[in-house]
Amino acid sequence: MLDNLDQFRCLKRGNAGAINIDPLQRGGILTPEAREAVLEWADGYSVCDYCTGSLEEIQNPPIKEFVRQVLPEFLEVDQVRITHGAREGIFAAMHSLCEPGETVVADGNAHYTTLLAAELAGLKVELVPAGEGPGYRIEPQGYQEAIERARGRGERVSMAVLTYPDGNYGNLVDPTAVSEISHDAGVPLTVNGAYSVGRMPVSAKGLGADVIVGSGHKSMASSGPIGVIGASEELAERIFRRSKLVPKKELEILGCTLRGAGILTMMASFPAVVERTKRWDEEVEKARWFAGEMEKLGMHLQGDRPHGHDLMFFKSEILYEISKTAKKGRYFLYRELKKRNIFGIKPGLTRQFKLSCYLLSRQEMETVLSAFEEVVSNHPKA
Amino acid sequence: MLDNLDQFRCLKRGNAGAINIDPLQRGGILTPEAREAVLEWADGYSVCDYCTGSLEEIQNPPIKEFVRQVLPEFLEVDQVRITHGAREGIFAAMHSLCEPGETVVADGNAHYTTLLAAELAGLKVELVPAGEGPGYRIEPQGYQEAIERARGRGERVSMAVLTYPDGNYGNLVDPTAVSEISHDAGVPLTVNGAYSVGRMPVSAKGLGADVIVGSGHKSMASSGPIGVIGASEELAERIFRRSKLVPKKELEILGCTLRGAGILTMMASFPAVVERTKRWDEEVEKARWFAGEMEKLGMHLQGDRPHGHDLMFFKSEILYEISKTAKKGRYFLYRELKKRNIFGIKPGLTRQFKLSCYLLSRQEMETVLSAFEEVVSNHPKA
Repeated sequence: MLDNLDQFRCLKRGNAGAINIDPLQRGGILTPEAREAVLEWADGYSVCDYCTGSLEEIQNPPIKEFVRQVLPEFLEVDQVRITHGAREGIFAAMHSLCEPGETVVADGNAHYTTLLAAELAGLKVELVPAGEGPGYRIEPQGYQEAIERARGRGERVSMAVLTYPDGNYGNLVDPTAVSEISHDAGVPLTVNGAYSVGRMPVSAKGLGADVIVGSGHKSMASSGPIGVIGASEELAERIFRRSKLVPKKELEILGCTLRGAGILTMMASFPAVVERTKRWDEEVEKARWFAGEMEKLGMHLQGDRPHGHDLMFFKSEILYEISKTAKKGRYFLYRELKKRNIFGIKPGLTRQFKLSCYLLSRQEMETVLSAFEEVVSNHPKA
Repeated sequence: MLDNLDQFRCLKRGNAGAINIDPLQRGGILTPEAREAVLEWADGYSVCDYCTGSLEEIQNPPIKEFVRQVLPEFLEVDQVRITHGAREGIFAAMHSLCEPGETVVADGNAHYTTLLAAELAGLKVELVPAGEGPGYRIEPQGYQEAIERARGRGERVSMAVLTYPDGNYGNLVDPTAVSEISHDAGVPLTVNGAYSVGRMPVSAKGLGADVIVGSGHKSMASSGPIGVIGASEELAERIFRRSKLVPKKELEILGCTLRGAGILTMMASFPAVVERTKRWDEEVEKARWFAGEMEKLGMHLQGDRPHGHDLMFFKSEILYEISKTAKKGRYFLYRELKKRNIFGIKPGLTRQFKLSCYLLSRQEMETVLSAFEEVVSNHPKA
């Protein structure tokens, strides 16, 4: 193997200039400023030239100001730290605020990493089941019931988690209602904002969140992995407690997390990110229009109606029927889109898939729609 | 604060073209191939275009081949995974292999993150004390004594950690002797190779390591944070166990770690990294020559003699004496070097400091030596 390494030298991603409609990727595309930053700061430990003991204390570059002042104001939360991503932030919160054996209550649409974080922290998970399709709604009242179910079994519930929005349907549950129920039950609320922080205006205080996590590579135009965690003063003291063995260092994040270019890309993109959250309503309007056009072609939007997020999940029996006889079978859709330089729907999917038009121009959206239109009209159904 | 964000847009590192002698940074400088890769793959989740469920299974780009075949062969270890860095790898090993309340034995020269990882995993730490200066040696026999001390107190010792080399003095302890002692005591050995993997030829099997961690941003010419963890088949089964709640995903690493450009920079640099480890002897020779020249100027190399690593720790009473009356006081050395476009000694240090000439040319090393020579001869002592 070690004689055949040249293949690793110059790997290309191979979708330059394409229209990318992957919801996972649309919010993580770098700004021009971040592309400059990633090269400028790419070398290992580049941000540590003027280290004074911890990442969040570095003044040159001004990471301290960004993390201590700017991000807390942006998220309307008391304390912020940089993490390796949303999942690592959720684990940090659970690991520091809950005791092994306790239970966390989470929405049934939660990202799989919420379950992993809980399991890794030694916690049980009680899910709030989502309703039937096509809405797959989570009712805030379900949190009350989930807490009661767990307590009825004698379990100690020590955190509620709400995925806002979830990554399957882009559904937005009323967070203040969940917060009220959680707080009435004496349980802190962690909001997973991987798909909201950096896309939508998000205020931890406004949502009633005690802890909030966001994802730089998913929604803050950052080169990942990188994320943020914010917490109320009271919980921040516990999550960001200092080590007993090395008292200068914060224990839960092992001293420093983002000792590289990622944090500088988040900072470089941040002015643009702040601006784009102000235009969130336009993005929602675009999504609704796009979904309406897709439905005219026979696709069916799942989740909230009217839809409140750029992440859209479609069911499309019509494409599934086509796939039964199409050349390349279930890979036909991927290939048809690829021919038109459109990427982002997972190879092999036809019957249901997710997409997003976040930050796409009207013209690009029309290109995508025309592609689906052609695919449907050019192919015979089975 | 949110009205004053332009400052974050185009931050420059400000040391372009400088000679960098920071040991923390010399092994993490990107290769030209990695600089191309970091731009090509900079967008969020760029590596996930053809995700099949986990990072280490991705075939396009060929992450699977790199992690499953190439890295295990390179490290001579059964299983490898990508981590956020060496510290996160050590935590993963401790968290999965040890039970809270147990004790790990570590060398007294260990990086502070070994202590943090143990504390975060709920473990006690028994240190093998380093000898007096200037050698600061760790004797392998000290592991035997540390294990006995802990056991004498009724503690259960469940891991030994050796920092190879340590990050203060660049000392290399005989790992096979430590391994033998650990194994005789029924305790697995974790080797922290943050300063060796990617610099020196390192074989986990050769060292007798059951677990090995390395750092991409420190020693593998990668844009961090990124690291590797390797483990014997037996321990890999426990460290990389799958989740019960989400059986497709590995629990300890929360499913996937490096969902971004970092892994592609590690892959792009890897052919060069393999080659440079073959020339390690030259680097050691360079360090010895450089240290000898520094000693002629009145500086004193600490740690192993003959020295076996590019990381060099100097004591320099002579510079300290100068600093007492120099303009700018203890910052004079930093400023004198900066004037000559040499970076990497922490601002304010004079009496002792670390540096490295790893991968510097003879001419660059001579530039650095001349700088020290001038500083000493141009300044009156206090």
